[in-house]
Amino acid sequence: MNLAALSISEIRQALATGDLSAADIASRTLAAIEQHNPAINAWTGVTRDRMQQEAQRVDRLKRDGQPLPPLAAVPYAVKNLFDVAGHTTLAGASLFSDRPVAREDSWAVRQLTTSGAMLSGMLNMDAYAYGFTTENTHYGATRNPHDTSRIAGGSSGGSAAAVAAGLVHFTLGTDTNGSIRVPASLCGIFGLKPTFGRLSRSGSHPFVASLDHIGPLARRVSDLAEVYDVLQGHDPSDAFQATEAPAATVSQLDRGIGGLRVGVLGGYFQQWCDDHARTAVATAAKALEAIDEFLLPEAELARASAFILTAAEGGNHYLPALKQSPERFEPASRERLLAGAMLPSAWYVQAQRFRRHCQQQVLALFNDVDVLIAPATPTCATLIGQQTMRINGNDLPTRASMGMLAQPISFLGLPVATVPLRTTSGLPIGLQLIAAPFNEQACLRAARALEQMGIAQAMPANMEDKK
Amino acid sequence: MNLAALSISEIRQALATGDLSAADIASRTLAAIEQHNPAINAWTGVTRDRMQQEAQRVDRLKRDGQPLPPLAAVPYAVKNLFDVAGHTTLAGASLFSDRPVAREDSWAVRQLTTSGAMLSGMLNMDAYAYGFTTENTHYGATRNPHDTSRIAGGSSGGSAAAVAAGLVHFTLGTDTNGSIRVPASLCGIFGLKPTFGRLSRSGSHPFVASLDHIGPLARRVSDLAEVYDVLQGHDPSDAFQATEAPAATVSQLDRGIGGLRVGVLGGYFQQWCDDHARTAVATAAKALEAIDEFLLPEAELARASAFILTAAEGGNHYLPALKQSPERFEPASRERLLAGAMLPSAWYVQAQRFRRHCQQQVLALFNDVDVLIAPATPTCATLIGQQTMRINGNDLPTRASMGMLAQPISFLGLPVATVPLRTTSGLPIGLQLIAAPFNEQACLRAARALEQMGIAQAMPANMEDKK
Repeated sequence: MNLAALSISEIRQALATGDLSAADIASRTLAAIEQHNPAINAWTGVTRDRMQQEAQRVDRLKRDGQPLPPLAAVPYAVKNLFDVAGHTTLAGASLFSDRPVAREDSWAVRQLTTSGAMLSGMLNMDAYAYGFTTENTHYGATRNPHDTSRIAGGSSGGSAAAVAAGLVHFTLGTDTNGSIRVPASLCGIFGLKPTFGRLSRSGSHPFVASLDHIGPLARRVSDLAEVYDVLQGHDPSDAFQATEAPAATVSQLDRGIGGLRVGVLGGYFQQWCDDHARTAVATAAKALEAIDEFLLPEAELARASAFILTAAEGGNHYLPALKQSPERFEPASRERLLAGAMLPSAWYVQAQRFRRHCQQQVLALFNDVDVLIAPATPTCATLIGQQTMRINGNDLPTRASMGMLAQPISFLGLPVATVPLRTTSGLPIGLQLIAAPFNEQACLRAARALEQMGIAQAMPANMEDKK
Repeated sequence: MNLAALSISEIRQALATGDLSAADIASRTLAAIEQHNPAINAWTGVTRDRMQQEAQRVDRLKRDGQPLPPLAAVPYAVKNLFDVAGHTTLAGASLFSDRPVAREDSWAVRQLTTSGAMLSGMLNMDAYAYGFTTENTHYGATRNPHDTSRIAGGSSGGSAAAVAAGLVHFTLGTDTNGSIRVPASLCGIFGLKPTFGRLSRSGSHPFVASLDHIGPLARRVSDLAEVYDVLQGHDPSDAFQATEAPAATVSQLDRGIGGLRVGVLGGYFQQWCDDHARTAVATAAKALEAIDEFLLPEAELARASAFILTAAEGGNHYLPALKQSPERFEPASRERLLAGAMLPSAWYVQAQRFRRHCQQQVLALFNDVDVLIAPATPTCATLIGQQTMRINGNDLPTRASMGMLAQPISFLGLPVATVPLRTTSGLPIGLQLIAAPFNEQACLRAARALEQMGIAQAMPANMEDKK
């Protein structure tokens, strides 16, 4: 039985019937990671013992006739900025390689553990989550499973590559300016960046408190929704968490798009991408009966403001370490962080004011539409080491620009599901399905509709049969 | 009948029995303002026509046998940064003297209008609300009714002087770092700075979005509570307003202090004041049976952080005007604002982070105490033009330091009632009664208890009989 071909609910069934045991799944997963990770460099650490113990716990429940939790025996991994008890939280930075191990799991990992999922390890990322390519000077580049000469995207590159390679069913990533959506797009899988404040970030290494989100990546919309539902819930230790009640999405997935008004984001989002991206938008728009085009006013300013918040808060966060050990920093980010710390406070305050203004303005859009479609990246995966990419007649710096269509949306805090489409280049590209705050359900329903029509589907990576 | 001697509820009674008409009250108030304002320079504009119309409306309701609203015929005035339809909102700045008149009332003024209160005009303040002395270069200093050679405090100096002089029953002020509490202290009246986010600020000219509060000043605790209850309510147009439900306080006032645990704030708050302030704290502590001393950790850092937020957000707000017309700025604030705009963003971000940290920490204090006592100002009113004052063996700049005991508390966003005590100098001094977030009721109950014991009472100003 090909594990990767099973959905989470099929794993549940196979466990129930005894066709699979958790121990089977764990040992096959660990073997597959050992065999295939060297080609993609997604894992920075494997939690073999923990995974086997978690498998034993599930098998014991089964043996004792106890009910199995919703994610029983589902293999997963997390970006290496989530605290995992007993392991050092790297946040992609060699700076942190000698810090003490985490004493307890992050809030999200605790939720997943309680739900029976089995942790296989921690995943590579851009240092500090600052970048869109996962070309990490200290831990190496993560490679795209569809073409290992290409980037996986970032900053959650390991999280996307691990799922795209079929090695685990889902991963956790984080998204400050696009760090879930960009790698999901380039690796051809599904991803969810929930509403800002929806999911607790406690125990995940912070980058930009005003913008950081956590979220899942998976190969199926139903898997994405199952994981998302488990991650919801109030955590009083996260001062930024919104007080919205959890909203089960998995049971709503198959309602179709009846009643959902879908539109296309025009202007900036159609201008700053290539024909692969435009074709993908047109294909999805047709399938979802999206006719009207909508404009996000001042998208460029939103992106500029997101850069300011990121540089300033990132710079603040790393300033003590920058003063003490600048030589230990990722060279590609050191100067950005230093410059960010010294931006005039009036710019930072203005960016926050502009954000509140935009957030108020954008609500009006959702009087007329429920889901907006936009590309997740301007283009498909570029080559590792490729410094620029040509978009809209301009040579743009790859590492900063791969997120240029994702950035304005996270600045607004809106929920987004990313869905993968095939392009004529043979590489996938992702689309953003964007909804009003706390309407993750609409994003996921639209994603599910595209998946069921066969329009958006996780592309099998060109790696030999994994498990 | 001496109007100033009546409480709001006594005005209600006198209207009901016909002993007073709203027109009487309005004309006597306007005459008294005309006669006495020149000595104190509290009003920057008088709304004679509006007040007379508001009086007519109340008298008409009475004639028609309609029920009277809760603040019917109560004369008041507002700091000149609240929008009043048809008048230019000055925010103490000559910079704004030629801007168009406000098209509608601010949210707070609308609430008061609906409640039947009668607006007499707008009140002087430090330019931009940046200062603690109301020594306004363009509109003149407001003078303390107890001694017109002395400051009224600021920035809501006009709001405090107008009430202390007995010319209106209450006023609205704003408090960013102490701007209600400082003038209430120096003018010997009661003031309420509610929890940050409790009252809508819509239509009040902003200074520091992260710290601005609005609130009432009055000569009686019951009047303060009556006005505060009218000001509560949800306003969707204020993005910073908290979602707490309104909590009627006036009906709770006379429960006494049974069940209230009262303590004294020690350390910084006992160190940076003179013997008048310390004696006042000891007197109130004894009356409220406060024995234990509590410490606010890192009060100095809280104050420093409040300075950073203030300079940065104030600087951001005024930067376009500073670039265009620096010559129109209050000389005492121009350089502070420019410097604030250029503070490194890392400092601003750090101050916001520290604020969230402190807000979490301080909640633990309120497990053991309900109300904390601290001086509202380090000393009594200083002379107009007095550049420094000697506190704790140091010569401190008066304009910046008069709020040094108020600033850490507003930084935390805690509700505070200020109560006036008499000192042996013949001048009043105010105490802060501080409670946990959204527990304004505890502040007001403790204030009421001190008032009923005769310990805290608005001192009659040394002006001849007003009306």
